[in-house]
Amino acid sequence: MTTQQLINQIHKKQSFLCIGLDVDLNKIPAHLLEKEDPIFEFNKAIIDATHHLCVAYKPNTAFYEAYGIKGWKALDKTISYLNEKHPEIFTIADAKRGDIGNTSTMYAKAFFEDLAFDSVTVAPYMGKDSVEPFLAFENKHTIMLALTSNQGAFDFQTKETAGTELYKKVISTSKTWQNSENLMYVVGATKASYLGEIRQLIPDSFLLVPGVGAQGGNLEEVCHYGMSANIGLLINSSRGIIYASHGTDFAEAAATKAAELQVNMASILQKKSQG
Amino acid sequence: MTTQQLINQIHKKQSFLCIGLDVDLNKIPAHLLEKEDPIFEFNKAIIDATHHLCVAYKPNTAFYEAYGIKGWKALDKTISYLNEKHPEIFTIADAKRGDIGNTSTMYAKAFFEDLAFDSVTVAPYMGKDSVEPFLAFENKHTIMLALTSNQGAFDFQTKETAGTELYKKVISTSKTWQNSENLMYVVGATKASYLGEIRQLIPDSFLLVPGVGAQGGNLEEVCHYGMSANIGLLINSSRGIIYASHGTDFAEAAATKAAELQVNMASILQKKSQG
Repeated sequence: MTTQQLINQIHKKQSFLCIGLDVDLNKIPAHLLEKEDPIFEFNKAIIDATHHLCVAYKPNTAFYEAYGIKGWKALDKTISYLNEKHPEIFTIADAKRGDIGNTSTMYAKAFFEDLAFDSVTVAPYMGKDSVEPFLAFENKHTIMLALTSNQGAFDFQTKETAGTELYKKVISTSKTWQNSENLMYVVGATKASYLGEIRQLIPDSFLLVPGVGAQGGNLEEVCHYGMSANIGLLINSSRGIIYASHGTDFAEAAATKAAELQVNMASILQKKSQG
Repeated sequence: MTTQQLINQIHKKQSFLCIGLDVDLNKIPAHLLEKEDPIFEFNKAIIDATHHLCVAYKPNTAFYEAYGIKGWKALDKTISYLNEKHPEIFTIADAKRGDIGNTSTMYAKAFFEDLAFDSVTVAPYMGKDSVEPFLAFENKHTIMLALTSNQGAFDFQTKETAGTELYKKVISTSKTWQNSENLMYVVGATKASYLGEIRQLIPDSFLLVPGVGAQGGNLEEVCHYGMSANIGLLINSSRGIIYASHGTDFAEAAATKAAELQVNMASILQKKSQG
């Protein structure tokens, strides 16, 4: 998918919502556990109920790997279902991968070719030759960790590094890499005020913003500091949507929560287009 | 496995060799491609031929994920084979994972429980709460990236951060984390001279050292700077061993290459015990 196709979808749906598909068998409704593939059945129901309200889905690979082969099969079925039924939706493998060149190419093949995701999240610690192999894939997007939403972000990411904070050094260095136009960045909503400074470094790049809702980030504040001329934001919510109810009405409850966010996003987009 | 069991095995086998099982279907002997599970058959033959010469095996997950469900099954079969036939051997899932707390616990379950590896490699960028969930597992080991063997290591890892190099900041900070005694560290052999300084920070921790052989690292130099009182080194070789021959004699050729390294290691251990 091209970035322009993503932007078009945002305008059409009046939404820049990404729904995180982090399926924990201990948290899904009990009646699904009797199905042959409870994880996929849960995802399918969530997708069927929310696809008109969001522009992206983001399965976190940890939740699938934890169930071994069964989990990997559920991930495969989920992305296949998305690509078949809703090819216009942007898909993110939240995998936070990264390795030396040759090995990163194997990861890129796993997520871009075998599973056919539109994008994958990567970690920056190993530098240029660990990320460039992902960037070489045409019309695929590599979403690099910059400033994450957790407390541990303050351990290294915000530390002064080579004259600036590490996360800024990561962002500015990454702009020099080959095919850097295929980069997006993870910036946590819990650090909304940092977004203004980040926008000075990357005025146009898309940012994937986790942490709205359950982790305490504020949608209006994120948009105030982080929205670009081309929107440039994907706001992720996982638990706040998919676990809105633990009953048989879980999909409807998820749609209600997603609709609340979508309505707020539509209002923000409308104000922006008028402003 | 406890660290002491690993040390005992090193003394018994007179080896601190780790063999990387990075199986690329384009590089394995053609006759294996006719088998139902070529990746597992390759690994099984390598393990059968080399298990007496090494103390650890390290499959890199990228090479399995690239083949989707088939690849994940081959990984599952490989670790099961190792745990059944050679339970004394230390197993490393080279996965370089890391995510926010809850999610890192799912990764830890994937590798420590579902696949039953003794250890997993992790990336430090997200800080304390991304690594501590791994450290909570008893008699399991978490091998954190410190200074990697690739060129990209110079992008961030060696940059001055909070008054020292980032990789040193990562190491010293990690020592304050809960259950930090379960940490080991990745330090590339191509940066052997850095090992002396690293040993001042972590005199006793085990270091996983990739980069000997194909990447140009030197065994004697690594041991000179990096060996601790309790050895404290696992030297990894992947391509140099497993792709020593592309013919039907691949396993014997791998054993020959592994034996060359083991003989050098035995000589180093002997000198050490005499010195």
